[in-house]
Amino acid sequence: MEKFKVKAFGTEAADAPLKEISIERREVTPKDVEMDILFCGVCHSDLHTARNDWGGTIYPTVPGHEIVGRVTKIGDAVSKVKVGDLVAVGCLVDSCRECENCKQDLEQYCIPGFTLTYNGPDKYLGTPTYGGYAEKVTVDEHFVLKVPENLDPAGTAPLLCAGITTWSPLKHWKAGPGSNVAVIGLGGLGHMAIKLAKALGAHVTLFSRSPNKEKDALELGADHVVISTDDAQMKQVKGKFDLIIDTVPYVHDVNHYMSTLRVSGTLVLVGFFGNLEEMINTDPLIMGRRAIAGSVIGGIAETQEMLDFCGKHNITADIEIIRMQDINEAYERMLKSDVHYRFVVDMSSLKN
Amino acid sequence: MEKFKVKAFGTEAADAPLKEISIERREVTPKDVEMDILFCGVCHSDLHTARNDWGGTIYPTVPGHEIVGRVTKIGDAVSKVKVGDLVAVGCLVDSCRECENCKQDLEQYCIPGFTLTYNGPDKYLGTPTYGGYAEKVTVDEHFVLKVPENLDPAGTAPLLCAGITTWSPLKHWKAGPGSNVAVIGLGGLGHMAIKLAKALGAHVTLFSRSPNKEKDALELGADHVVISTDDAQMKQVKGKFDLIIDTVPYVHDVNHYMSTLRVSGTLVLVGFFGNLEEMINTDPLIMGRRAIAGSVIGGIAETQEMLDFCGKHNITADIEIIRMQDINEAYERMLKSDVHYRFVVDMSSLKN
Repeated sequence: MEKFKVKAFGTEAADAPLKEISIERREVTPKDVEMDILFCGVCHSDLHTARNDWGGTIYPTVPGHEIVGRVTKIGDAVSKVKVGDLVAVGCLVDSCRECENCKQDLEQYCIPGFTLTYNGPDKYLGTPTYGGYAEKVTVDEHFVLKVPENLDPAGTAPLLCAGITTWSPLKHWKAGPGSNVAVIGLGGLGHMAIKLAKALGAHVTLFSRSPNKEKDALELGADHVVISTDDAQMKQVKGKFDLIIDTVPYVHDVNHYMSTLRVSGTLVLVGFFGNLEEMINTDPLIMGRRAIAGSVIGGIAETQEMLDFCGKHNITADIEIIRMQDINEAYERMLKSDVHYRFVVDMSSLKN
Repeated sequence: MEKFKVKAFGTEAADAPLKEISIERREVTPKDVEMDILFCGVCHSDLHTARNDWGGTIYPTVPGHEIVGRVTKIGDAVSKVKVGDLVAVGCLVDSCRECENCKQDLEQYCIPGFTLTYNGPDKYLGTPTYGGYAEKVTVDEHFVLKVPENLDPAGTAPLLCAGITTWSPLKHWKAGPGSNVAVIGLGGLGHMAIKLAKALGAHVTLFSRSPNKEKDALELGADHVVISTDDAQMKQVKGKFDLIIDTVPYVHDVNHYMSTLRVSGTLVLVGFFGNLEEMINTDPLIMGRRAIAGSVIGGIAETQEMLDFCGKHNITADIEIIRMQDINEAYERMLKSDVHYRFVVDMSSLKN
């Protein structure tokens, strides 16, 4: 397989800072799309992988799965995009395409297993996949999304992870006009959940522990903010919500929110992997046909649907643009939640 | 309000056996139906209430909420049934009828609160409600069900609790041809879940800890039995089920079953109130859009739908008929799971 070298930013060890390294990309095969990466969003998963917080990181690793770029080359059989198109790549660059989930456009639940955009098994080169902190990437056209040209490309990058992660449950659980949606947590995911739920026509409430987030939430489109530590405020929203999007990225107690769901309502976890605390009390589930569910990113067709929707409604993420060379400092700020609401790397900084 | 006395079986204290007592019923008001009780099923809730296991029992208490009877008198405004009709009463005898849930035929989720058939607040007499261990009962026609005349009335009694408790989630989560349903636990609820899911056209699996339940489960209509303590058998059903009806009535760990759900599948708790153990691990929820939900009995329209379905498919519970005087011994046997699958009291025994 023919390959070429590109500049990237990655790390050699869990405790080493990210720095410029050289990696290889494949030359396009018939179904491949090669793109110049313009912007890459910075997700918490990038940091977790770089630092091996979840185990399993193969070094060197190059994070980045919120990729917006412009097509520079296509394989002979590519029909989806052409050279010069504004495109995007999210968390997945491959899946089996044959299991019952893939066949239903649910590549995110591929049964044999999908290929993550970074630290996944690269079927072509036999190395780990390397993510979007790089000059270029080559991806099968099935996993390449088209970006509406009216959208700001930098603000579009976080739609590929934070956007689709909240869009998918909003659509699956039918958020729309007449429905009451609540969002727990106002970070990268939470701020997108508010924007998307609002644009879908739902009445949107933010649950927050800190009163100082109210102004920001209302500006983002929330109709209402409930301070979740205030028992009186919690009581006022008892039985109110059809859907709660729980974006909290650390261990927490979901029991606290269950009685705020309406009959047949669902709380969907999108931000925390691991064991919940405390024990789940079944009473509000049984006495209200309520559910606790989870959801991960979204399928490729669904991601395109979201990008088209965002194009129509002119929705992008609220971002802070950084240079690639500032990524280590950005990680430290992310750990302190000091970002509104997503860092996006301007990849032209890597060319200089 | 005019009243009349009837013989009943109840208890004066948590540690006292049930015995014959005299209680009062109201004379029919315009919307009321008075019936002779022919049979009354014996639910675990009867025992829990008699012994105050959940707290809140007001003594004397008369259990029984799986009631089949024949109409003996109706109020002037009753249009649903006539004298002589075979009828039934389940767990509810009243609700607000005005909240958003009641208006959607979801009386079981009445927001201000429904009136339980026993140990509920009787709006008419100011006493607790008294259940079906009695000669007669008077109930508002809205909460009276019509029983298909082809059904065995004794075997029909458990449909009013064990039947509807499993029917409601099977219908809500759309069990039917092409769907894979699993049932955890083979007791009163579990045996009805198998019969109803099978009649709805689903492929039905029983999860059981003991291999000796296999023969019974297959006879009841299950297609398959999985021994849940056998890792190899559990692995074989990974990602298989659209719906799991969890009838286990004691604290247990649902994590064990989550990976056997297909993408977007749901495990529904119907048998256990309280805190689950262990902590819920969110990984199978998030990586498969799976849900843990709960469900309680069913609405009145839905209960009628189930009875009509059972009439059409000639489905009743597998029961052991007892005399009212044998109820204390029956409770002891229930505690040892020594019943296949429900005791039903022949109420003619109370008349002798």
